[in-house]
Amino acid sequence: MKITDKVLPLLMTMGDPNGVGPEICLKALAKPLKNVTRPVAIVGDFDVLRAAALLLGIKRNLVLVENPEDIRFAVKFGIPVWEAGIKMEEQVSPGKVTRKAGKASIGWVRAATQAVLDKRAAAIVTAPLCKEAVEHTVPGFQGHTEYIGAMCGDSHPVLALVNGDWVVAHVSTHVALRDACDLVKVPRILKVGTLLDDFLRRYKGLAHPRIGVAGLNPHAGEHGLFGDEESREIVPAVKKLRQKKIDAAGPLPGDVVFPQLRAGTFDGVIAMYHDQGHIVTKTMLFDLGKKRRTCGVNTTLGLPVVRTSVDHGTGFDIAWKGIADEHSLLDALSLADILTRDR
Amino acid sequence: MKITDKVLPLLMTMGDPNGVGPEICLKALAKPLKNVTRPVAIVGDFDVLRAAALLLGIKRNLVLVENPEDIRFAVKFGIPVWEAGIKMEEQVSPGKVTRKAGKASIGWVRAATQAVLDKRAAAIVTAPLCKEAVEHTVPGFQGHTEYIGAMCGDSHPVLALVNGDWVVAHVSTHVALRDACDLVKVPRILKVGTLLDDFLRRYKGLAHPRIGVAGLNPHAGEHGLFGDEESREIVPAVKKLRQKKIDAAGPLPGDVVFPQLRAGTFDGVIAMYHDQGHIVTKTMLFDLGKKRRTCGVNTTLGLPVVRTSVDHGTGFDIAWKGIADEHSLLDALSLADILTRDR
Repeated sequence: MKITDKVLPLLMTMGDPNGVGPEICLKALAKPLKNVTRPVAIVGDFDVLRAAALLLGIKRNLVLVENPEDIRFAVKFGIPVWEAGIKMEEQVSPGKVTRKAGKASIGWVRAATQAVLDKRAAAIVTAPLCKEAVEHTVPGFQGHTEYIGAMCGDSHPVLALVNGDWVVAHVSTHVALRDACDLVKVPRILKVGTLLDDFLRRYKGLAHPRIGVAGLNPHAGEHGLFGDEESREIVPAVKKLRQKKIDAAGPLPGDVVFPQLRAGTFDGVIAMYHDQGHIVTKTMLFDLGKKRRTCGVNTTLGLPVVRTSVDHGTGFDIAWKGIADEHSLLDALSLADILTRDR
Repeated sequence: MKITDKVLPLLMTMGDPNGVGPEICLKALAKPLKNVTRPVAIVGDFDVLRAAALLLGIKRNLVLVENPEDIRFAVKFGIPVWEAGIKMEEQVSPGKVTRKAGKASIGWVRAATQAVLDKRAAAIVTAPLCKEAVEHTVPGFQGHTEYIGAMCGDSHPVLALVNGDWVVAHVSTHVALRDACDLVKVPRILKVGTLLDDFLRRYKGLAHPRIGVAGLNPHAGEHGLFGDEESREIVPAVKKLRQKKIDAAGPLPGDVVFPQLRAGTFDGVIAMYHDQGHIVTKTMLFDLGKKRRTCGVNTTLGLPVVRTSVDHGTGFDIAWKGIADEHSLLDALSLADILTRDR
């Protein structure tokens, strides 16, 4: 997939109106964007955004557009907002989980994703929504990744965490750890490795990205002493990746390959399950001690829809106080822009 | 267990003669020790150590002692060395795995552990040995932790990683990830929590250490959506810990509780399996990009023998080049000293 039409916009969904989404979307667009070449619009409720702009003292106009095609023009007059026919049907209640907030926030995600599928937009960048609120409208809702995957007909979307040079793609995500062990299979590892290789070429502009493959078990099984998934599944998968001219190495113990990623030995790492990639990424990058809540970017690999996301939640505890930090969203915008450039 | 006899020494085992052990032991004792109140001796081969001292240009004398009781006097004249009747029976071969090096290195560990059990020494501090080399002498050898545990009659020694304020104790260590899931049981979590609480009181001098308990599954099971170990085992264990007046909180998602440990919300964390604690600890602390190879200290909780260790391997690639870094060993000495003080 190549999206080369430079005027196709990036659609930034506002997230849950009761969370930090409206604030961070506006803060991100309050000043001219660096590192983003495409026009950007917020997909969300115009009135909610106007209230947030007032709270934040943002000077730029909000410009309501009727369809994605108008964003390229509207951007000259202010911050484009596309409602996609969906309003927040009640007053905002900062920090509250409400059915109507969930319904509206998933509606904007659906509309934005459809616009990308219809080639009316280049990519979707998502602010945080509340799973619990969305579940009233979409029973069993797991998250953006799975929802957008399903809209694209892919039941195994690959989640990657990105922060600067730090890139981790996951063989599985939202399943029990025991089930995650069962999902360590040659075809899945092969898929993740191929998608990660493609991603790293586009994201880092590398001809031959070096990919480290983590083992599933401690010490990568210590030569079969603790578990055999390494010899049974991971070794054959790495061999097949190398046959495809992908520079994969492993399986390596988790507590070796991630320090090596940090040291620059690899350009990206394949984690065998959610926590193997998430704990280290969030602990290294999430500056909980400070006010800034940035921890990089989530992105979904292998879908016809390019999607990036902040990697934090709705921030209900600090919502509508004007203090939420927009830097993770700015990183997500920048990444979406890079991924939709023609190389 | 209270070890208050201030003259009982710390016994520092030399590790594999072909690795970095001899060098880091000597570097650690080349200058007067800060933060260590007890006399310290190296347990290892006198001639090997003399060769290493020559390589390093260390000015202090090496003083051979016949038994641990002499260490307190020998320390006035130089660096005490106790061979415990065990010699390296061949020439040193830097970076090589040899049966005789393994035999000697585990012999020193055995002698030092026995000396602590016999109240002739306060604690053991271990330099790295080579599992593969030791396996010729001790079939199925898993590591210091399990070996010393077995000598003390404990089949479930609890491994903790320590670096400054960062403390992580593990419910299991060297088992396959599937088996680690089976080991997430109330009694084990209770044991680890109780030992960690005791450790934190002694190590940090806190009356009520705050302990974060990680979940096993992603998002700590997301309310039972991915796995039920949280509700079945971890929740009841946390409840029991709290009934024992231990300030435990959780289960919390792994990618929440470790950032919180970093931020100071907790004084220590219980990890449910090896990689959950090890990956993040080693990646945060292991400065692979620099020459310094320090990554904190290993310690074994709950044994009658206090044991601390460097948290790195034999460094076969840099052995006998005079460049190995002693700071992790110094940290291990300091921790052993703290843990054997009477509070």
